[in-house]
Amino acid sequence: MKELILYNYFRSSTSYRVRIALEIKNLRYIYKPIHLLNNGGEQNSKSFRELNPSGGVPTLVHGDAVISQSFVIIEYLDDAFPDSYQLMPVDPLQKAKVRQVCEIINADMHALQNLKVLQYLEKKHNYTQDDKDKWCQQWIRPSFHALEKILSKTSDEFCFAETLTAADVLLIPQVITAERFKTDLAEFPTIQKIYKTCIQRPEFMKAHPFRQIDTPEELRLKPGS
Amino acid sequence: MKELILYNYFRSSTSYRVRIALEIKNLRYIYKPIHLLNNGGEQNSKSFRELNPSGGVPTLVHGDAVISQSFVIIEYLDDAFPDSYQLMPVDPLQKAKVRQVCEIINADMHALQNLKVLQYLEKKHNYTQDDKDKWCQQWIRPSFHALEKILSKTSDEFCFAETLTAADVLLIPQVITAERFKTDLAEFPTIQKIYKTCIQRPEFMKAHPFRQIDTPEELRLKPGS
Repeated sequence: MKELILYNYFRSSTSYRVRIALEIKNLRYIYKPIHLLNNGGEQNSKSFRELNPSGGVPTLVHGDAVISQSFVIIEYLDDAFPDSYQLMPVDPLQKAKVRQVCEIINADMHALQNLKVLQYLEKKHNYTQDDKDKWCQQWIRPSFHALEKILSKTSDEFCFAETLTAADVLLIPQVITAERFKTDLAEFPTIQKIYKTCIQRPEFMKAHPFRQIDTPEELRLKPGS
Repeated sequence: MKELILYNYFRSSTSYRVRIALEIKNLRYIYKPIHLLNNGGEQNSKSFRELNPSGGVPTLVHGDAVISQSFVIIEYLDDAFPDSYQLMPVDPLQKAKVRQVCEIINADMHALQNLKVLQYLEKKHNYTQDDKDKWCQQWIRPSFHALEKILSKTSDEFCFAETLTAADVLLIPQVITAERFKTDLAEFPTIQKIYKTCIQRPEFMKAHPFRQIDTPEELRLKPGS
């Protein structure tokens, strides 16, 4: 089997998505940390931009193939490893329903909570941490309301009944981001229920931002916690 | 065949993506205009939110199925109409490469140029049109640089050699958005070349924002222009 190398950062929510998918699929990989803040952001180095011209994490190397964009990597892993656990349904409509939840997170919310945007708002408009929290909350809340409405009809244990899909893989890191920016989750009982189920599973635990080789000591979770 | 209904808005770049895909696939559809500005935004009405809890366009109705998120709709049309022109390659790596270009546009750039975000910046920080242009340009330019680098290696007539894919379907509306926010395209010769090829094709012309039933008279392009 060709080697899998994941360039990623412990705290990046899109990196977390891919780590979860790799764990669920039980695919071994080499973890290459890319620090998004040190040295002006290691993702901006010339050598890293040769690999990924967008200068972002996660970036997956699989033999000769280099793939960026977390949701693309997740679907690629389904296709490239057809014997691994499949995170996307086969039926066209079911697949579209899973992708719809994924894109509400990936396309509607993610860019607005991005480090680059928050850094810009801090520099340009003197945003404090509280301002940044409010900025993020105002984009997270309407999308979470939409997700809550959708998932209240489709979910059981997971976003889609009792089947773990890419929707769960994208939702859990987004919940952690929402908590990080102090979003009140009381209005979203369905999202909370799914989060509680998933976060206790070994795949989500192992991939968690606070359990990686580049997690700073003061943030690191103890094994079993 | 079950009826296709597209809820959309002439100017929305994500609506334009889906109209292009429907034209390339030669699928007839009913055009239902949703005005994003009138009456506080028709996408926010109770009845529309029953259809799409995110309150966004485009939204596709196909028989009993309701699908939102433009890129999801495009991949659904490939799956649901396997005899139509296929916008996604079959090979896993090629598919990932096309999706990667799509998500640089869909996930990295789109949300930041969204009407809601620009309205917020206007209200909160008194952004003028010039400020809004600069805000958009600063997010468009780095992603266009990444796309230029990728496409300079993969493109010929289209983003991927001589095959029209979903990458072209997402790129052309993004170029129009970039122009609308006065982005200087001189640095992006490959993107410009692909744009010039595509925009002259009948599918892209017919789907163009300035040729729809809800295009205001003063913006409407003459037939053949």
